[in-house]
Amino acid sequence: MSALEESKSIGDMPVEEFREFGHKMIDWIADYLKDIEELPVLPDIKPGDIKSQLPENPPETGEEFSKIFRDVDDLILPGVTHWNHPNFMAYFNSTASGPGILAEMLTAAFNINGMVWKTCPSSAELEETMLNWLKQILNLPENFWGIIYDTASVSTMHAVACAREYYQDLEIRKRGMSGRNDLQRLRVYASEHAHSSIDKAALTLGLGLEGIHKIEVDDQFRMIPEKLAEAIEEDLSKGYYPICVVATIGTTSTTSADPLEKIAEIAKSKNIWLHVDAAHSGVTAMLPEMAEYFSGIEHADSMVVNPHKWLFTPIDLSVFYTKHPDVLKSAFSLVHEYLKTAEDNSAINYMDYGIQLGRRFRSLKLWFIIRYFGKNGLADRIREHIRLGNMFTSWVDASENFERLAPVPFSTVCFRALKEDSSGEEINNFNQNLMDEINKTGKLFLSHTKLNEKFSIRLVVSGIRTEERHVKEAWNLIQKVYNEKINDPN
Amino acid sequence: MSALEESKSIGDMPVEEFREFGHKMIDWIADYLKDIEELPVLPDIKPGDIKSQLPENPPETGEEFSKIFRDVDDLILPGVTHWNHPNFMAYFNSTASGPGILAEMLTAAFNINGMVWKTCPSSAELEETMLNWLKQILNLPENFWGIIYDTASVSTMHAVACAREYYQDLEIRKRGMSGRNDLQRLRVYASEHAHSSIDKAALTLGLGLEGIHKIEVDDQFRMIPEKLAEAIEEDLSKGYYPICVVATIGTTSTTSADPLEKIAEIAKSKNIWLHVDAAHSGVTAMLPEMAEYFSGIEHADSMVVNPHKWLFTPIDLSVFYTKHPDVLKSAFSLVHEYLKTAEDNSAINYMDYGIQLGRRFRSLKLWFIIRYFGKNGLADRIREHIRLGNMFTSWVDASENFERLAPVPFSTVCFRALKEDSSGEEINNFNQNLMDEINKTGKLFLSHTKLNEKFSIRLVVSGIRTEERHVKEAWNLIQKVYNEKINDPN
Repeated sequence: MSALEESKSIGDMPVEEFREFGHKMIDWIADYLKDIEELPVLPDIKPGDIKSQLPENPPETGEEFSKIFRDVDDLILPGVTHWNHPNFMAYFNSTASGPGILAEMLTAAFNINGMVWKTCPSSAELEETMLNWLKQILNLPENFWGIIYDTASVSTMHAVACAREYYQDLEIRKRGMSGRNDLQRLRVYASEHAHSSIDKAALTLGLGLEGIHKIEVDDQFRMIPEKLAEAIEEDLSKGYYPICVVATIGTTSTTSADPLEKIAEIAKSKNIWLHVDAAHSGVTAMLPEMAEYFSGIEHADSMVVNPHKWLFTPIDLSVFYTKHPDVLKSAFSLVHEYLKTAEDNSAINYMDYGIQLGRRFRSLKLWFIIRYFGKNGLADRIREHIRLGNMFTSWVDASENFERLAPVPFSTVCFRALKEDSSGEEINNFNQNLMDEINKTGKLFLSHTKLNEKFSIRLVVSGIRTEERHVKEAWNLIQKVYNEKINDPN
Repeated sequence: MSALEESKSIGDMPVEEFREFGHKMIDWIADYLKDIEELPVLPDIKPGDIKSQLPENPPETGEEFSKIFRDVDDLILPGVTHWNHPNFMAYFNSTASGPGILAEMLTAAFNINGMVWKTCPSSAELEETMLNWLKQILNLPENFWGIIYDTASVSTMHAVACAREYYQDLEIRKRGMSGRNDLQRLRVYASEHAHSSIDKAALTLGLGLEGIHKIEVDDQFRMIPEKLAEAIEEDLSKGYYPICVVATIGTTSTTSADPLEKIAEIAKSKNIWLHVDAAHSGVTAMLPEMAEYFSGIEHADSMVVNPHKWLFTPIDLSVFYTKHPDVLKSAFSLVHEYLKTAEDNSAINYMDYGIQLGRRFRSLKLWFIIRYFGKNGLADRIREHIRLGNMFTSWVDASENFERLAPVPFSTVCFRALKEDSSGEEINNFNQNLMDEINKTGKLFLSHTKLNEKFSIRLVVSGIRTEERHVKEAWNLIQKVYNEKINDPN
């Protein structure tokens, strides 16, 4: 085998080639972020349009990197929904800040797997320190212990798994849940407006959909504590076993906040694990003016907050806090011989606290972001988003053609257009079409929900590149498309 | 508020600052990869050494990026275990190739969340296409359907969840597993040498540790099919309900391969879901000379293979294939109103096929890597690792001072040093100390396992930067430290 042949059959891309294309990629990304407003937020394509451009078979031999790089523009970009676009105001937007992207580069280059302390001490110790920093920033109780997972769905699954493990008399770890005559039906409580991740946790953990008791909400979409108390009593009278109450601060549809103090009181009186889902809105706990929503958080047994949602952190990074890391460990730890190390008793091996053994070096992102923006810089940005959300709300409220469908505690606005003599399915269809036409312009991306059977358009302000002018443009566009539809219904 | 004050309180890092530090970061990474052999594989530090250098409190105001960047060298690097080092031969090494790192940069910059097709059509369609490519590369059955998860633990959890859902008469999705007199004890079968992720799946899904029936292995650490058949019969006679058999191709300790054909025959005859855990060694299915280990794969109901282990893909990227995506969807899909889209019936919404709603644009990594190296380039590299593993094996076998403790089907070698008149705990301690002293040099990182009560050192060749010279150096170092220990036991 010649030296040339050998060099092709072993080893990585030559470092100097990596350097060359790395610089090109940085310029590409910088230009992408600089000019992102010129791109359509939402691509105008149909299912299959991207796939049909891609070869059905993998290449036999390697290709030039320059060709692959060119294909990013030609084949991939046309099908990208631009989450970093300042007019992406759908779902819970997640935007990547510059420091966050730079940290991801480093995470990829180190490529460590932080399963135990030894496999990357810096990862284990930076994770611990960053979650202490974040705890201080968010004014959370001193006795919260944190771990980074990938997504809120996984964090919430761990919360409910903790709740299941918390009641040691159930012997779930050892005996499981099937084939047991002695195990009562386990129940989890969450509001009708709780996130689908609660349901997914119940499915995963074997509680089943019938294992969830959905609690009615008030006219502001907040769980009614009295209904929760009734539900628990009802279940107890049936011989069921309540294990977990989930309170949500910032539900997905309207960002309503369940009354935490009262819910905590009920959960506590019945010795039920209290989990707080603050995946999106939890970051606002850093603002004194939002403290009211988090009053009672000291009673929570666990909590999830996602920096990858509203803390400018590239996806994925979800933070799970619990007062009972021992329960989490008891639910998940399993140490086979090949994973034992000398430091098992003197350092945190995060693999013991969750389902995942493989763990990326995610804390670098928090380190870069918290240091670059500072506590005040982060607070300023979130405060500005709330100001913009309220500004948009005031326009909706002042308009004769629109109505607001829910309170706006943070920066997510639920509203709909009005149409003379129109109601029920007709006005729902009108609003669905209005939203679709707005999204088709490529200048704004909104999503929707349904509130009391009413189709509601949802606008969220949480992107790091979103400024006052973008919210103004959004409102102008919404009005423009509305007027066009009213004047020319076809 | 002045313009300056305002610019600090809103928006991202200025694009030109991102560009400047992006270029610096690329040079840093290129130099890191170029000079990685000069760094110690394993840092010589104690628990707490990194943490004690980090401030206990977050900064109030933002810091200069140049300062944060400098601290990567000063505070983080000293505590990094270098997984990309060519002499990282511990665990199942995972190395990041240049094209993989470049793809991660793009993933971070796009920062899409591919929960539904609409939130990034390119992600959904590239994922589908890449998993079809990988299926072809690995010679897997045409009717395998794929999805990307983060880690093998999560893939395997989904496999067992599928198995639980497959038996619709159990009504797990709806009714769950607790409080049911009609539900028999569910059982999963795996070899004694199966990975801890099987146990974690059982814990998570509520099967409990008693829900797993561990099957004895033969003298080559392969599941004994007759023992599996007996175990199933025994469980059936007790009224248990067998739901899943896990066969492993490449167990963690020795990379032994369970006899798939025979296991498949047993599972099939009893209508039990067959999952194949090929997280590490599955990539070798691309080599015709390794086909024997994968014979019978067409009978598998599901399979996991991790490109982030031995396909030069930055962590994390685990691939799950199943013949029954409908079962997977039935186990996990839940579509709340706010996630409904017009394309729900014409495109794949990957969120329906797993616990995680948040999904990074991971397929970009596979696209870059498969195209850059080509099918042949990937095969050449893996073949070379197997050659090097066999070369090391031949040295161990030829040495009077060492013995091999397991067959070497791929490129992982289990061996130990011999010492005159020494056995039992004494020789175990000798080998533990030998390994620790080797690791302390910083020139090589090996891990261990226990085989039939024997402490076994483990050496794996799977890093993209590992060449013949590194394996030779490893063997020389092992012999050198051994000789020093023998000649000067203190």
